[in-house]
This record gives sequence, C-alpha cells and structure tokens, in this order.
Amino acid sequence: MIKKMYLVSPGPVPIPEDALAEAAKPIIHHRTDIFSDILMEVEEGIKYVFGTKQDVFIIASSGTGGMEAAIVNLLSPGDEVITINGGKFGERWGEIARAFGLNVHEIVLEWGEPYTGEQLYEELRAYPNTKAVFSTLTETSSGSVYDIKSFAHVTSKTDAVLVVDAVSGIGATPCPMDDWGVDVLVAGSQKALMIPPGIAYIAFSDKAWKLTESSKFPRYYFDLKKYKKSFGKRTTPYTPPITLVIQQRKTLEIIKKMGIEALFEHHRILADATRAAVKALGLELLSKIPGNVATAVKIPEGIDGKEFVKIVQKKYDVYIAGGQSSYAGKIFRIAHLGYMGAFDIITAISAIEMTFSEMGYKFEFGSGVKAAMEVFRREWK
Amino acid sequence: MIKKMYLVSPGPVPIPEDALAEAAKPIIHHRTDIFSDILMEVEEGIKYVFGTKQDVFIIASSGTGGMEAAIVNLLSPGDEVITINGGKFGERWGEIARAFGLNVHEIVLEWGEPYTGEQLYEELRAYPNTKAVFSTLTETSSGSVYDIKSFAHVTSKTDAVLVVDAVSGIGATPCPMDDWGVDVLVAGSQKALMIPPGIAYIAFSDKAWKLTESSKFPRYYFDLKKYKKSFGKRTTPYTPPITLVIQQRKTLEIIKKMGIEALFEHHRILADATRAAVKALGLELLSKIPGNVATAVKIPEGIDGKEFVKIVQKKYDVYIAGGQSSYAGKIFRIAHLGYMGAFDIITAISAIEMTFSEMGYKFEFGSGVKAAMEVFRREWK
Repeated sequence: MIKKMYLVSPGPVPIPEDALAEAAKPIIHHRTDIFSDILMEVEEGIKYVFGTKQDVFIIASSGTGGMEAAIVNLLSPGDEVITINGGKFGERWGEIARAFGLNVHEIVLEWGEPYTGEQLYEELRAYPNTKAVFSTLTETSSGSVYDIKSFAHVTSKTDAVLVVDAVSGIGATPCPMDDWGVDVLVAGSQKALMIPPGIAYIAFSDKAWKLTESSKFPRYYFDLKKYKKSFGKRTTPYTPPITLVIQQRKTLEIIKKMGIEALFEHHRILADATRAAVKALGLELLSKIPGNVATAVKIPEGIDGKEFVKIVQKKYDVYIAGGQSSYAGKIFRIAHLGYMGAFDIITAISAIEMTFSEMGYKFEFGSGVKAAMEVFRREWK
Repeated sequence: MIKKMYLVSPGPVPIPEDALAEAAKPIIHHRTDIFSDILMEVEEGIKYVFGTKQDVFIIASSGTGGMEAAIVNLLSPGDEVITINGGKFGERWGEIARAFGLNVHEIVLEWGEPYTGEQLYEELRAYPNTKAVFSTLTETSSGSVYDIKSFAHVTSKTDAVLVVDAVSGIGATPCPMDDWGVDVLVAGSQKALMIPPGIAYIAFSDKAWKLTESSKFPRYYFDLKKYKKSFGKRTTPYTPPITLVIQQRKTLEIIKKMGIEALFEHHRILADATRAAVKALGLELLSKIPGNVATAVKIPEGIDGKEFVKIVQKKYDVYIAGGQSSYAGKIFRIAHLGYMGAFDIITAISAIEMTFSEMGYKFEFGSGVKAAMEVFRREWK
C-alpha cells in the first residue's frame, strides 16, 4: 500500500501549507528592517493570543527553556514555591525548581484529577512564604485542563505569582493573561500556534517584573531584561530562529483572521467529536477534567496497549500517542490540536476502530466514526 | 473552523511530500549530464510502468497533447479511423481526429456501458480500411475501464493500430503495452504517476513506427522522430519541464520500490472500499464496468446534485468531482487514484454522508464509512 502519514499527536502538530512553504524560501538576515518588521508583527500577534498588553518575548528554545526562563528571572535559591503536578509537565515544574535549589511544595495529583482554587488557597495558607505557584494550563499527558482562572483569583490576593505552562494549551483553550491575572505565561510554537518546535514565548505581568528585581539566580541566555532591551530596538539579544519567526507570522495571520474565540471553538468541536467517538466505542477517558487539546483514553481490559498503539502507528500510519511514564501501555492519546480538521479526527477514530477490531476488542464496528460524524454534522461550519 | 483541503478528484491527485519538496529546490539546467542522468532514469521508470521495451517520449504538454501527437505521427488527412466514445475522453479522440480531417467512425456508447473485442471485430469488418482504433483505458468521466486486452487481440490481426489513452489509467490498472500488443500508449503525469500535470508520455510499437513512414500530417513540436533522435543523445528536442521530470523520478522511486502489481492492488483496494461504501449508502454506480481510478455514483432522486457537490466541496473542503457534460448534476465522482490512502477514502465517504444527511437523503448514517472500513480492515497491509 502507498503509505501516508497522519499526525494526531499532541505536538508537533500538522503545519499549514503556507507556513511550510515559508521554510522553503531563501533565508533572510535578522539584523535588517525586513526581519524587524516581521518580528514586531509576530510580537503583536502573540500578544493577541496571550490576551496581554505586556511584551511577549521570543526565545529560541523549547517550551522547557521558557519554563526555566520563568524560574531564573523570578526567584532566588531557597525560595518557597508550590508546583501543581497532575502529569508529566506539571512534574517538570518541580524538576526544574529542584534543579535550581528552590524549596518545592509539590502537589501530586492523580493524573486527570481536578484541583480547585479552594485547594490552592488552603495550600497557600499552609505555606504563606510561597513566592510562586506553578501550574500547567493543559496537561497533554493526561488530556486535562486546569482551572487557571480560579488559581489566578487566589494568587492575585497574595504576594505569590502564578506561573502557567501554557505550552500546549495556548490558542486551544482560553487563558487570557491580563483578564485572569496570570503573572507569567509560557507557550511553545509547535501546538495551536501551528509551526515547528523551536520558539518559547513568555510574558510577565507587572507583579512578576517586580519580583525579578529581587531574583538572585545567575542568568544570561534566559535573562528577560536583555530581551526587553532588545525588543525596544525591534530585535532580539541573540540570533533568533529566523525561519520559525517567519512561519509564525503566517499562522498568526490564520489565527487573527478567524479570531481567537473561533480557534477555541474549533478545538472544542474537535475535542467533543473525539470524546463522543471514544464513548461510543465503550471506552473510558482518563481525565475527569478533559480539555480541548488531547483526549487520553484508557486501554480496555484484555488489550495490550503498547501493541495497540504500535498497530495504529505502523499499520495505519496514524500517529496517535501512547501513554507516558507509568501510563505507558495503559492509555492512548488522540490530539485535536492546531492544524487539524474534522477528517483528522475521523481518520484517527477509523484507524483505532480497525485496530481494536483486529485485536479482538468487542464493540459496535463503525460506531465511533458515526458518533464523531454526528458532532461534525451538527457543529462544523 | 480551520479549513484543510482534501483532494479526491480524478487528477490532479495529491503529490507525495518528497516529490513536492523537489519543486522547492533550485532548478538545474537541462543541457547537463546531471539532468540527462535524471531523464534517462525517468525513461527507464516509465518503460517499466508502460510494460514496454520501446522508447517512451517525454513531451511537455497535457495528456491531450500526447493524444494529438499520436494522430499527427500516425495518419494522413482522410484516413479512416474508429474511435470508441464512452465518455468525455473517448469523445475527445473523435474531436481531435475530426480537427485533423480524418474520416471518423465513432462508436458512441452510453457512459458506463461495456464494449467488447467482438464488437470491435465487427466494426473493423465493416470498415476494413481503418488505419487506427482509438480507445481510452479508463474513462474518468464515467468511472469505467475498457477491455484493452481484447481490443489489442483484435487489432493485432489487422493492419489497424490500437491507440490507447491511458492518461488516467496508467499505473492504476494493468495495461502492459508489449504483452497485450497495444500500439500506442499515451499517459499523463498527474494521475497514478503522482506529480503535477505538464508531461505527456507516449510510446509506439514497431507497427506504429512503420505507420509513421506514410503519415503526411505536417508536424513539428509533436514530431516523435525528433524526440527519438534527441533521446539517443540523452536529451529532449525542446526545453523539457525540468522540475516535473525531477519530481517524476521521485514518485517512480516509490512505484519501483513497491512494484507495479502492488500499485494496481493498492488502487483496487481503494476502489473496492469506495464501492462498498456507496452501495451501503443505497447509491447506484453509473458504470457497468467500474475501474480502479474513479467511482461515478448516481445522485439519488430528490437530491440536487450540483448543490450536493458544492456542499461537500465548500463546507467540508473535500474535492470530489461532479459530473461532466450531460451528466453534470446527475452523478458525483470519487477518485481513488495516485497518492491517496485508506483515510482519503474514509474522509470522502464521511463528507458525503454528512452532506447527504443534511440534504435529507434517507440512509443509515455511518453505514458507508463502516463498509469502507470493513474492506480496509480486511485488506490493508
């Protein structure tokens, strides 16, 4: 058979053709007016996506680099922080914080369990010297979305800043930084921003900027003051990922044209169709707080979960994701993120049904695709 | 919603990513050893696909140019010819033949009706001075495949040459030129050869070459002797479509790697799945001789066929084809051709089901996709 690869993993995501084509064009130099204009256009676009009037900085790094940048600009060795760990990326906040010698109060949640603003309020009362709270917006490892709005409501009444890893969630689910009172927002380029990995975006609130004054971590590459100063000159302190910035302009054009609300709604419909499908197949979601980014589904009893993902990927060339860490073999994940459309979901569900059927799992063949189609028939515009 | 375009029309077809990428590379000059090597590699690849030891010529033209090349090299004004017209492209043979002042005996068939070797034998008995018989291998307008093997069996016993328009069929359905005794085979680049339009391929049997000796049509651009002479020097008489030739090398690599038999089987499985789906939806095929290239389906009563195609294309961005000529609004066509896979068919059927459902056609929602999935579950490798 002729093999075509379908990517329905939670990042990287498929890239719009116009953005791909940008990478095939001759590269330009970054210390030029042409590039400065593009950089500033991307800056404005990302501010729109972030919902902020603050500067958003473009760092050549993965999302993890953006997370580290938050920590080294805000804090000092020994500072008390709270990290909310409901999955692999929440766990990462704790790992970075400990690597830098912070005093970490880690809230370890079962993957997919909710965490409320009230719980955070109690935690902050228990640790009144907390300087920062770290959370994820959407946890791709479990397919969850956290209640950042209520977290921000709580932190805004304290001295602690709220730092949010929105790497996978930005653009897919609401997180208006200024409106909600998020202090630090970190995003990545390879999710709903729809370009390849390589850029971390980060913005600080006034409260976060104030905290940087007392921060004693040594820093150079991630020193946001350097980025701020360069931004005033319409440039970057170090060599920017030129092609990615140019590609980002292209996908921001798409986002601005459709509007951020429509982009959330797009993801919501894809997510609803996916969940309707897996429920029709008699499968169970891992998360009690499922979000717009990815759906994590429990492997049914009697099915080898690793073998299942392998068949979907190798036989049908549909790159769903397996489970990470202790959930390897126990769940699979379908992303509905970025440049994906209704038929990417139909494709994923179809490959999943054929594989389950082949592996002897009992269900009504075709019912998943039918359920997804029912959502799309009703909601696709 | 974020719009992604899906192409399931009978040419052009989706192009493999590696072949697309070739077009983004800097162009090279054609009077160079580098290009000559590529040209000869493509020549060998196309000979393999044609199933011939004859030279295959690369003409910068659409498939229609290749058809005209056959006529102006073989015949003279007033010559008697038979054209088999079972659709838009069979009709074109008659149009070209008349434009050049040939004496045309046109066999006009209902679209989708078969035509046998016995019928052709009788026709040749009725017109014993016939110099050439013109047929299509696969008629995309009606989704039919003709029995070229039996036509060749008949013509091989006469002085008439058999000229076959295999523009859409080559690579998708068998037509081994030398084995079957086809005298002239014409193909295009934008179907199962999986690159953009712009190249016509043409090969002549010894019997056809002999006929060129007596041909009196004036010719220059399409004079195959010029192409033959240039080929001896590993080049082309006029500027070749350089990028297309380089792209063609890439897709021929795919074809050679999988093997031509597997390529036919690939198309056969896609076609079977498509037909299983439309039958499950209670729809009727137009053709009594359906082929591997495209499936033409009658629009059910009470449904506005033009509106139907419009919704599938504009709302779902799935580019199935409508009917041509007098079949506009009466049929729709799904291609299963070239760089398409199982999920392109699933996508097409899914969009069709959602559209029919929206338009009030009564059927079991989801049954088409299910039927296609049953074929793929059984046959996809």
